[in-house]
Amino acid sequence: MIAETNGYMAAALDEARRAAAEGEVPVGAVLVRDGHILVRAHNRVETDRDPTAHAELLAIREACRILGEPRLPDCDLFVTLEPCAMCAQAISMARLRRLYFAAYDPKGGAVEHGPRLFGQPTCHHAPEVYGGIGERAAAELLRGFFKDRR
Amino acid sequence: MIAETNGYMAAALDEARRAAAEGEVPVGAVLVRDGHILVRAHNRVETDRDPTAHAELLAIREACRILGEPRLPDCDLFVTLEPCAMCAQAISMARLRRLYFAAYDPKGGAVEHGPRLFGQPTCHHAPEVYGGIGERAAAELLRGFFKDRR
Repeated sequence: MIAETNGYMAAALDEARRAAAEGEVPVGAVLVRDGHILVRAHNRVETDRDPTAHAELLAIREACRILGEPRLPDCDLFVTLEPCAMCAQAISMARLRRLYFAAYDPKGGAVEHGPRLFGQPTCHHAPEVYGGIGERAAAELLRGFFKDRR
Repeated sequence: MIAETNGYMAAALDEARRAAAEGEVPVGAVLVRDGHILVRAHNRVETDRDPTAHAELLAIREACRILGEPRLPDCDLFVTLEPCAMCAQAISMARLRRLYFAAYDPKGGAVEHGPRLFGQPTCHHAPEVYGGIGERAAAELLRGFFKDRR
């Protein structure tokens, strides 16, 4: 189970590297169902000129399109950065079962930081959350990206 | 100015009625730039089988597509219901100038209720917010919709 989890996060990290190669903030995600990766996605905000094109939102939308369902109760999401409030709320509304994320984001994260959305009394569905999975590699990729930009 | 504001909200309410006619939770939005309506959108979650297809997110994405920009600093959004956390965060990331909303949403709203996203220390951009504009008609439409469903 740990090996599988690490494998899925490694696939999400590959997606993050693709984002970096495209000049995007390096965040990647994979959506897993029945032990298989259903969708791979990475941040495309600048490429698509779409502020909502975060890896998580793209993965959720594509999975719903593939499955023809607006909810994903038997799916798990692996993402390389703690989700922001937009993505955390989308994860809740999509009824995702589990969320695994790598790097913590004290500035923009909304799961373990800021509004802590899944702990709000108005949150109708909270996934199981596992933070810090493969944190070091994801954080180094992000740090390297922002260092090069300065 | 008040007449214009009411006119834009009336257009958003027309969109909400379209949503209701399609069996969707009746929420509509218009995005305004330079005194003109750039985009009209309504909730399409069930039709598109997409949990992120809220009126606000659809309006923001379409406006960014039309303008070819991932941010909308000179645009105002009119929406018939207080935005949820997903939409509020998207409004912040899109750098929208002003948010006008009609009905308050104590259960799912994230602007004046729940996480109050724009007041969070981690919120990088908050629009000017005007709540309760045309509240009565929007709230009645929502109440009627949920009453018919019971």
